[in-house]
Amino acid sequence: MEAPSRDCRIVPEVLHDYGELAREVLCRYLPVREPRRYLYDLVADYPQRGGRMLRPSLCLATARAFGARPEDVLPSAVSIELLHNALLIHDDVEDESEERRGRPTLHREHGTALAINAGDTLVVLSLEPLFENIARLGSRLALRVLEETWRTARETAEGQALDLGWRRDNVLDLSRDDYLRMVLRKTCWLTTLHPLRIGALIGSRDGFDLERLLRFGFFLGAAFQIQDDLLNLVGDPVRYGKEIGGDLLEGKRTLMLIYLLERALTGERRQIHQLLGLPREERSPEMVTWIRKLMDHYGCIEHARGVAHGLAGAAAHEASLLFAGLPDGRDRRFLEELPAWVIERA
Amino acid sequence: MEAPSRDCRIVPEVLHDYGELAREVLCRYLPVREPRRYLYDLVADYPQRGGRMLRPSLCLATARAFGARPEDVLPSAVSIELLHNALLIHDDVEDESEERRGRPTLHREHGTALAINAGDTLVVLSLEPLFENIARLGSRLALRVLEETWRTARETAEGQALDLGWRRDNVLDLSRDDYLRMVLRKTCWLTTLHPLRIGALIGSRDGFDLERLLRFGFFLGAAFQIQDDLLNLVGDPVRYGKEIGGDLLEGKRTLMLIYLLERALTGERRQIHQLLGLPREERSPEMVTWIRKLMDHYGCIEHARGVAHGLAGAAAHEASLLFAGLPDGRDRRFLEELPAWVIERA
Repeated sequence: MEAPSRDCRIVPEVLHDYGELAREVLCRYLPVREPRRYLYDLVADYPQRGGRMLRPSLCLATARAFGARPEDVLPSAVSIELLHNALLIHDDVEDESEERRGRPTLHREHGTALAINAGDTLVVLSLEPLFENIARLGSRLALRVLEETWRTARETAEGQALDLGWRRDNVLDLSRDDYLRMVLRKTCWLTTLHPLRIGALIGSRDGFDLERLLRFGFFLGAAFQIQDDLLNLVGDPVRYGKEIGGDLLEGKRTLMLIYLLERALTGERRQIHQLLGLPREERSPEMVTWIRKLMDHYGCIEHARGVAHGLAGAAAHEASLLFAGLPDGRDRRFLEELPAWVIERA
Repeated sequence: MEAPSRDCRIVPEVLHDYGELAREVLCRYLPVREPRRYLYDLVADYPQRGGRMLRPSLCLATARAFGARPEDVLPSAVSIELLHNALLIHDDVEDESEERRGRPTLHREHGTALAINAGDTLVVLSLEPLFENIARLGSRLALRVLEETWRTARETAEGQALDLGWRRDNVLDLSRDDYLRMVLRKTCWLTTLHPLRIGALIGSRDGFDLERLLRFGFFLGAAFQIQDDLLNLVGDPVRYGKEIGGDLLEGKRTLMLIYLLERALTGERRQIHQLLGLPREERSPEMVTWIRKLMDHYGCIEHARGVAHGLAGAAAHEASLLFAGLPDGRDRRFLEELPAWVIERA
């Protein structure tokens, strides 16, 4: 049996094309009106900083692979990107992050109060395309998309609560399963499952069992999150757009940290606990360097790379089962190549 | 012509009865499941601290006056109260408020990060009853209620942006018209217009022109907000449930402050500007006392009371025109008596 030929360029190409399409439509939902300097300038900031448009592209490709016309799915695809940007604003406040897409975070530029309100507003605006679905898709299908969005927002908030709560209480006795369960909700729903489900829902006109997408979305999304956490430690600062090592400063419970805590000696573990218990402003670059060295010592980064590879492989397997019945073409190949791209991206 | 007989007890009675009904239904939408201590305990906190249930009661009374069965409007009425509580959580973070309903604000008890996320979650949960409308009211009417909610959330966020932006930039050249335009969006939409519109929408099965409710809702909501601001200065701390004088500490642009700035001498104005420009933690009880005394000196409180009375009178007039064609009864009388109650409540 021949190995299937890999087409490494398909993912960047589709991301480029669908990304441009989505970006153009997205701008229509960013109001140019008063109040500007207290609201709509802030609301438009993150979406205009660029971003890879992974979520709308995944939604578009899935919908088209299932037979949708692009114009029937574009508003919903754009809605996902708007919601993603809205949650980024709140995430950055909650994480006390310094940078986003290569520039200071919104709350650092405008203050926490206006940033929170801008995030709320962008959540509201993200629903506007979904009301426009009524005319195009009919009331029933439009409502199904709204319900899916509702479900996704709720899962995401539950995952975020775990992530934040573990940090606030300096929880250390976490297993790799705890991590994966948190990531399923915090990351996978919005990043992969929701775009897939909306794409399949619209493409099939509610004729496909969305639960069948769970494994593919979970494996793909978890691999994506682990790669994202790895890039936070070892990525190129310019391409990554956030402060390298920022996750350690923020005390984020990553797979690398959890693995480190499993392997570390009692004294090291105690010291990590103490360092992560410091208030954010007392955490130092030296602390980051020390934990990073320990991670190298215990092979945490290699371990996480291995887990991400395993998940990406499982996702590729799922893709081959899931999409086998769909017509061959660019969209289907994008879906099949995405797992490999997710862990190779820089 | 005889003056219409006033029935002072009707508003508290209806608020009591409908409040109980709404509270019972509301609890069903507060999930009892994990993650509790990082999410759902926080989410349930404000709704369980009590509150007058003004918004769902107004929605219920309007719907019934327009002929709805209570069970057809209860989910939507409860949704309004849930959304209101969600926005209170974010408002309290944005305003750096200390107390809410007689206890420390949510972010003071659990930290800002978890509080913001709990607010986001409660926004999401507030939509759950609106999806249940599909089965009861049909897809079309359910979608209309969702669209109305969307509009209200957006208007509220725009008003909040003005309120926060004026404070952040220490803006002083505000007219009483600026204030009223801000209040229309920040307060009136969610507090009065939205409950009225949803009530009339469901009660009339989308057969009533909702724009006709604008004046009544605006006059009533503005009178409510001014009374609320007055209670923040002169209210009973136990009944009011927030720190007295807190608005001054937070630098909130109230009608009393705007009137004071119009009347104050140049030197006083300069000093107010300087005091309000201090970071929150440097503002002192002495500052609050000094500004309060100036407000007494220039009759700011009496002036604001006058404006609230005028608005309440205008609202009563609108009510008599709007509801004249509806059958007489408890619900209609509640709507007619509400303007007087709004400015008499303590």
